[in-house]
Amino acid sequence: MQFTSEQRLDDGVLEREFTLGEIPGTLWTTGAAPAPLVPMAHNNGLPKAEPRLVARARYTAARGYAVATIDAAGCGDRPRSAADDEARTELRRAMQAGEHVDEIFETFIGPLVENAVPEWQTTLDSLLELPEIVGPVGYSGGTALGIGLAVVEPRIAAAGFFAGGDVPRAQREEARQVTIPLLFLLQWDDQGNPRQRALDLFDAFGSKEKTLHANLGGHTGTPWFELEDGYRFLDRHLK
Amino acid sequence: MQFTSEQRLDDGVLEREFTLGEIPGTLWTTGAAPAPLVPMAHNNGLPKAEPRLVARARYTAARGYAVATIDAAGCGDRPRSAADDEARTELRRAMQAGEHVDEIFETFIGPLVENAVPEWQTTLDSLLELPEIVGPVGYSGGTALGIGLAVVEPRIAAAGFFAGGDVPRAQREEARQVTIPLLFLLQWDDQGNPRQRALDLFDAFGSKEKTLHANLGGHTGTPWFELEDGYRFLDRHLK
Repeated sequence: MQFTSEQRLDDGVLEREFTLGEIPGTLWTTGAAPAPLVPMAHNNGLPKAEPRLVARARYTAARGYAVATIDAAGCGDRPRSAADDEARTELRRAMQAGEHVDEIFETFIGPLVENAVPEWQTTLDSLLELPEIVGPVGYSGGTALGIGLAVVEPRIAAAGFFAGGDVPRAQREEARQVTIPLLFLLQWDDQGNPRQRALDLFDAFGSKEKTLHANLGGHTGTPWFELEDGYRFLDRHLK
Repeated sequence: MQFTSEQRLDDGVLEREFTLGEIPGTLWTTGAAPAPLVPMAHNNGLPKAEPRLVARARYTAARGYAVATIDAAGCGDRPRSAADDEARTELRRAMQAGEHVDEIFETFIGPLVENAVPEWQTTLDSLLELPEIVGPVGYSGGTALGIGLAVVEPRIAAAGFFAGGDVPRAQREEARQVTIPLLFLLQWDDQGNPRQRALDLFDAFGSKEKTLHANLGGHTGTPWFELEDGYRFLDRHLK
């Protein structure tokens, strides 16, 4: 792992860009004390520089976490194929139109998640060697990737799944194997993530402690106070 | 309103019993500064001395609220008929057996709620005259009574509805008229409050800001951290 740049932001958070082989990533810490690691990821291959993701990462880092994100293969700063770009454009159009497109979930999101899981494991290996980062790890991000990681990665002690009620079939079938404490966020009117599928998925998780938070509005309408609830959830399980 | 006894509890909360005509009540305050009023009520006529209700009231009072509860007609310290006692025994048996009994909802809970609404309004009138209490008012308690109060009582600015997904038909029909911010708690496995009815009720509220929190377990299994979430919700809307 090589750090390629760093800047101290006005909220006191240190933002460092890194590369790990082909994987570009960003790490946010305060440096005040060794901090539990929070991998923050988006299922659908949004770039790691996406402003809402960065805002959540900085907010969480400022509260005593080491937050990291990476660009998945074919996303953000990484080489991408024309086919990837087409699939991503179609997915964005469908989500914005409030359509749910099973086929894109299976052909685009599914492989993206399958490829991202081992890259995230490699990233955890390297980040957990840094002196400023300690376990346990608390995942915060997209549901499909979170399921994929949680079922193979015993270092993940708790997970917040963010406004994503629907996942590819492979992750839907793995949901019962997820047994860590969960906070599952649902946007009640998120037409791209049908409500009943989200409720069925919440029901399916094998965790003994799982909490559903649902708020009105569409996919990007999660209210600000859920950020606060999110780090309080992490506090309960990681600190 | 006459105060009939008072004691300072070990958490610093002042607990005062009062009577208001025929209505016996309890008020919990810290006395530190004028505090917003939180009426805390149970639909089904549990006595105001019920330990879990008292624990929630003291926890909330210690965080800067004036929390009040009263015994509904035929409940707790008030005269009760043999028919009331029978209905209450049958309701308790049905809830504990995980049965849902529509008929008891309509014949027992319905009238209890209808009678309790004006008594609560009288109680708010008197409590809001005390110098140690200020508006706005944030309801915390049973869903049916909360709906009944919210639709007639403009002083109620926000409401937390506690682990009750089902309500009599009259309140179900009034749900769309509730437009204040809501925090709706659902116990996922509360057989006495069928899950789908609870979700339908959450969907029906007319509020622009409404949040559902669901946790695993039965009617009395709400996890302790929901107490914290509850007063944070009140903090957002009352302070």
